[in-house]
Amino acid sequence: MAGGAHGPKHLRALTEIVLDALEDAVPARGGPLPAGGPEAVAVSTRALCSPVLPEEGVGPEVALADVVRAVAEGAADPADPACVAHLHCPPLAVAVAADLAGAALNPSMDSWDQAPAAGVIEELTTAALARLVHPAAPDPDALITSGGTESNLVALLLAREGASPGALRVVTGANAHHSVHRAAWMLGLPAPVVVACRDGRIDPAALDRALTALAGAPLLVVATAGTTDEGRIDPLPEIAGSAARHGARLHVDAAYGGPLLFSEHLAPRLAGLERADTVTFDLHKLGWQPVAAGVLAVADAATLAPLALRTDYLNADDDTEAGLPDLLGRSIRTTRRPDALKMAVTFRALGRRGLGALVEHCVRTAHGFGRAVDDHPALRRRPGDIGISTVLFRPAAADALPGEQGDAVVAAVRRTLLAEGRAVLGRAVADDGDGPARLWLKATLLHPNAATADLLPLLDLVTTAADRAARGISAAEGTGAPATERLSP
Amino acid sequence: MAGGAHGPKHLRALTEIVLDALEDAVPARGGPLPAGGPEAVAVSTRALCSPVLPEEGVGPEVALADVVRAVAEGAADPADPACVAHLHCPPLAVAVAADLAGAALNPSMDSWDQAPAAGVIEELTTAALARLVHPAAPDPDALITSGGTESNLVALLLAREGASPGALRVVTGANAHHSVHRAAWMLGLPAPVVVACRDGRIDPAALDRALTALAGAPLLVVATAGTTDEGRIDPLPEIAGSAARHGARLHVDAAYGGPLLFSEHLAPRLAGLERADTVTFDLHKLGWQPVAAGVLAVADAATLAPLALRTDYLNADDDTEAGLPDLLGRSIRTTRRPDALKMAVTFRALGRRGLGALVEHCVRTAHGFGRAVDDHPALRRRPGDIGISTVLFRPAAADALPGEQGDAVVAAVRRTLLAEGRAVLGRAVADDGDGPARLWLKATLLHPNAATADLLPLLDLVTTAADRAARGISAAEGTGAPATERLSP
Repeated sequence: MAGGAHGPKHLRALTEIVLDALEDAVPARGGPLPAGGPEAVAVSTRALCSPVLPEEGVGPEVALADVVRAVAEGAADPADPACVAHLHCPPLAVAVAADLAGAALNPSMDSWDQAPAAGVIEELTTAALARLVHPAAPDPDALITSGGTESNLVALLLAREGASPGALRVVTGANAHHSVHRAAWMLGLPAPVVVACRDGRIDPAALDRALTALAGAPLLVVATAGTTDEGRIDPLPEIAGSAARHGARLHVDAAYGGPLLFSEHLAPRLAGLERADTVTFDLHKLGWQPVAAGVLAVADAATLAPLALRTDYLNADDDTEAGLPDLLGRSIRTTRRPDALKMAVTFRALGRRGLGALVEHCVRTAHGFGRAVDDHPALRRRPGDIGISTVLFRPAAADALPGEQGDAVVAAVRRTLLAEGRAVLGRAVADDGDGPARLWLKATLLHPNAATADLLPLLDLVTTAADRAARGISAAEGTGAPATERLSP
Repeated sequence: MAGGAHGPKHLRALTEIVLDALEDAVPARGGPLPAGGPEAVAVSTRALCSPVLPEEGVGPEVALADVVRAVAEGAADPADPACVAHLHCPPLAVAVAADLAGAALNPSMDSWDQAPAAGVIEELTTAALARLVHPAAPDPDALITSGGTESNLVALLLAREGASPGALRVVTGANAHHSVHRAAWMLGLPAPVVVACRDGRIDPAALDRALTALAGAPLLVVATAGTTDEGRIDPLPEIAGSAARHGARLHVDAAYGGPLLFSEHLAPRLAGLERADTVTFDLHKLGWQPVAAGVLAVADAATLAPLALRTDYLNADDDTEAGLPDLLGRSIRTTRRPDALKMAVTFRALGRRGLGALVEHCVRTAHGFGRAVDDHPALRRRPGDIGISTVLFRPAAADALPGEQGDAVVAAVRRTLLAEGRAVLGRAVADDGDGPARLWLKATLLHPNAATADLLPLLDLVTTAADRAARGISAAEGTGAPATERLSP
């Protein structure tokens, strides 16, 4: 066991095995991800991990060494500057170490008698986050969630319960995360009304028209502060004004952009966020926490009333009256990890300024990377501003081919670099300025200390792979052979 | 950062601080939980952790030492044999160590390019679990969830989507976990129909009548294998037969009882489970994993089809065609921790027999504890069998008082022992044999190596506290003073 008087000693011996395996894996992997593609990774992982449930065990030391070696050699490591596909951050060592304490003690956040101090730490952490997001609200609050998807789900659930009479209608942008649509589906709500975007941001006039057309129904507007594809921030002041005029509740999905609030310099980009009733905020993106570190901030704690729940074994009335804190209404989950613990340690370690500096570093790096793309003769950056820390770009070799073939080159570049274990780039479909939608390579820069120079090797990797892909696609076009080779060798 | 070439070195230094703090906390706490009740814990926790988000940070070493000290000294440690309130297990050191690797590498389970090997490990793990639950099914499958609550939610969601035409009606026992009702509410379904229980188990005749009354509607029966209050297992063969006769889908919440399957000796108690369409299975209860370690097993992989989702940035059609595994339809979450990693390491380390032996130990300890209660002149065990590893009992001092006053003694005993930092006992309302429902003390025995003898001090703690509480309540009754004192000093 990890707890009790002898737990830390056992754990010390076993964490040594884990740390050794992690250390050895970096040179063994030799890049941001393993080479060979899905089939090769499956073969080497199975060799170390099968059968996963043997009849007789191999013992903790051997099992740890083998399985951790497999997962580490086969990882896409976001701490490698060439791993930039997603809102997938390299976690800070201090946050990971704090998480170890949470796992060892295993408090469960659904009742005081499973989490006496952990509950207090969660309360302090959510209070600080609530104040950060809604500094002027009289009684703001925040919940810890498993991520942006759960935060959006709870936001829609709270809006549904607050809406009466009649079924809630959700109105969101074409740029919204898929979890908004999924939440409406799960909750039995009508499909969200989708409003057109310009340059990846909600068009306020289109929003206003949509809200007018739905007059009479209870309404929830869902805006985004940091879109997944482009890092775009919706025009929050105009949206908040429009929502207020139409009596609509406002939710902002700031899973990506929320941490801009840590930086005095960048926080003004989120002006208007404080007018949202509910805000998704995520610290496993621009917050360098290991997953999960989701947050839902609410302007008014009373908004959370629909989550109240009483059950004799966790929060009986007489226990609550006698002073035992009631934690059950703080989540749609029951048993919960103490995810606030790693946030609290990170906050205390870095302070608001330290976190703000890391966010500024990512934004600055993205602009440096964007300029390097602009300066590169064989690459083209998507027209327009860089969204937070996301840069979209295309090889010129893709532009030289007709629409679908050009997009196939972009997709092939990404897959080739994945299969070769050289880079983990993302992809996004987005307008080409005033032109039609195209497929772009996406670099989501969340690395808290990689310099722009560390990212530059990506550019030549892309152009080299693009030239090969374009030649292959042109040749296949001539022969009728399939244009998209399989990833695995 | 925890990853990259230098990550393990940083992490090694910081985990030392964590392990030292965990080690020092055990004697400092001096028991299964801190003494003093909620207010005292809040004061000492705040002293070490406030402000949680300072303007300037204190550095990782100081932050870790302080906050981990706070959470550890203020923990209710399930590794202490006197911490038996809930389905709240002491995690195995091997599982906690494995979890450290997951946090350091931070794979996110929503796309291959964030989790190349972790995805394979999840696939191996869910395949093994699927086969364990549904050994004879041609194509079983399983998902990793955040716990029993999410598993039950997804089970109801899948049933809702599989039900047409008409709205799904859920039929469950009065013994079902609150998450079944909450899931129906979240999903916009009618409130579940509740069927009477006998001795904490669904009465099959009552179930049959309820299903007959709902004829024509799409139906889902939710049974429980291991109730939270009593560890009772519903009569699964009769329930499966009844569901089949009525064309109802069957879900079994085996969050507690599922791991009996690891033991050849105990598995027969779950006969009929293999006839369920969906099964909640939880390894952060009788599986000694740190939270979260939930599972939803399905008899037929096709059942999962409603979760399918396509989004260009995570699983574009051309990427999937090119061989990149599509992981997005494996959860209602998007970003996900690699919770299968710690399960896989634990399974490999212990094997099925090793896990089965730990489950058997808990069941055996509970029976030993139950006999000790039976032999104790000042205690009375709830009439009937022990459910899995849960023992309900009352002090005779409570029985000596009229109904409500007796229950108040039971509640006061629990709170007194919590406030004094001596024991973490649970509570449950349950029938007293053929008599009326009463409040009982609950011991949920999940400790994988505590002997019955280690648990015996609990008995005298209870009787001593009960005598005091009974005297206090009798005296208060005489004076009209409130019977329930506050917990905090």
